[in-house]
Amino acid sequence: MFISFEGGEGAGKTTQAKKLVCYLKASGYRVIYTREPGGTALGGKLRHVLQDSASAVTPLAELLLYAADRAQHVEQVIIPALRAEEIVVCDRYCDAGVAYQGYGRGLELDMIERINRWAVQGILPDLTILLDIAPEAGLARIMSDKKPLDRLEREQLDFHQRVRAGYLKLAAQQPRRFRVIDANRDVPVVSEHILNEIKPLLLSPAVGTY
Amino acid sequence: MFISFEGGEGAGKTTQAKKLVCYLKASGYRVIYTREPGGTALGGKLRHVLQDSASAVTPLAELLLYAADRAQHVEQVIIPALRAEEIVVCDRYCDAGVAYQGYGRGLELDMIERINRWAVQGILPDLTILLDIAPEAGLARIMSDKKPLDRLEREQLDFHQRVRAGYLKLAAQQPRRFRVIDANRDVPVVSEHILNEIKPLLLSPAVGTY
Repeated sequence: MFISFEGGEGAGKTTQAKKLVCYLKASGYRVIYTREPGGTALGGKLRHVLQDSASAVTPLAELLLYAADRAQHVEQVIIPALRAEEIVVCDRYCDAGVAYQGYGRGLELDMIERINRWAVQGILPDLTILLDIAPEAGLARIMSDKKPLDRLEREQLDFHQRVRAGYLKLAAQQPRRFRVIDANRDVPVVSEHILNEIKPLLLSPAVGTY
Repeated sequence: MFISFEGGEGAGKTTQAKKLVCYLKASGYRVIYTREPGGTALGGKLRHVLQDSASAVTPLAELLLYAADRAQHVEQVIIPALRAEEIVVCDRYCDAGVAYQGYGRGLELDMIERINRWAVQGILPDLTILLDIAPEAGLARIMSDKKPLDRLEREQLDFHQRVRAGYLKLAAQQPRRFRVIDANRDVPVVSEHILNEIKPLLLSPAVGTY
């Protein structure tokens, strides 16, 4: 089974994905946590390039860098784990490209879909948890961490609003794959809702394809 | 006018491109020399990632990284220079993607063409100088430099032979844009042949498009 976590900045993706991994491991499942960008050696270098506030990256170059990271990640991490019948929990995946570079930056959605499809060799998550939160609330969480903001986090509020609306549109278009969870609640409450969505699926694993 | 240099390892692209730039400058033209990968700040980082012998990069990720570099390069360097009516001399461009990732690594040619077209916003060279040389001869030149070989240079001979055949096929398909020059000759002889191809075009500049 392949589960992805999506959502805007400060939605709690990493926290919730890691909590889910702990739960699944404790329940006896073989599971890996991985993330984009950065789940491979190449990805680690690209993550640095992509998140570096000083880097000027054009929207098209950004899209292609994320796609390169994703191609490497699918080939080296996700496909081998799925073949070994492990559960894959991935912190961001293809949908982020559509939400951020498509809805956020205004690149052509059809182009993004095609590039994504090539990059991931048709491997889609069985389940995508969309952690939905108003950008104001998500960004407030990040600000309170007092870490320097990365390149995406520093975008204007209307960019983050377009990203959120894009994610919700994707979820509405693919209701079988997506579960939208209200992320503007305490961590344990959100975790419980996520588990309620996942438990019924643990008995019927299948690899999604485009 | 936009001129690209293409060809396999050790064909003399950089030497000849720089000699052409000197000639054009001495003739009073405004001209820039640039190269792929690496003509921008982002490109410099990606060039390092792509040429690092230790990096494992899947063929698809490699294609997408080159495309990301190219997208940034076209936007930040090539389009502004063409708008300023400068001559652009570029050391490798789109055709390298088709020759190396398509013919060399066996990725789908149609996919490469589409990704390239998006990445370069339709900007194609007016003239492409293909420096043709047998891989044995080109690689022998590189070996004699006694520098460590980069990731592409270390590929097997049959890879380089497929790249060469791919370049020649592209040139045969687009005879108006390509000039094939026998690069297995002394530098001044090759330069003279290149100048003979370029001089008649200096009076009629036009930006090529897909």
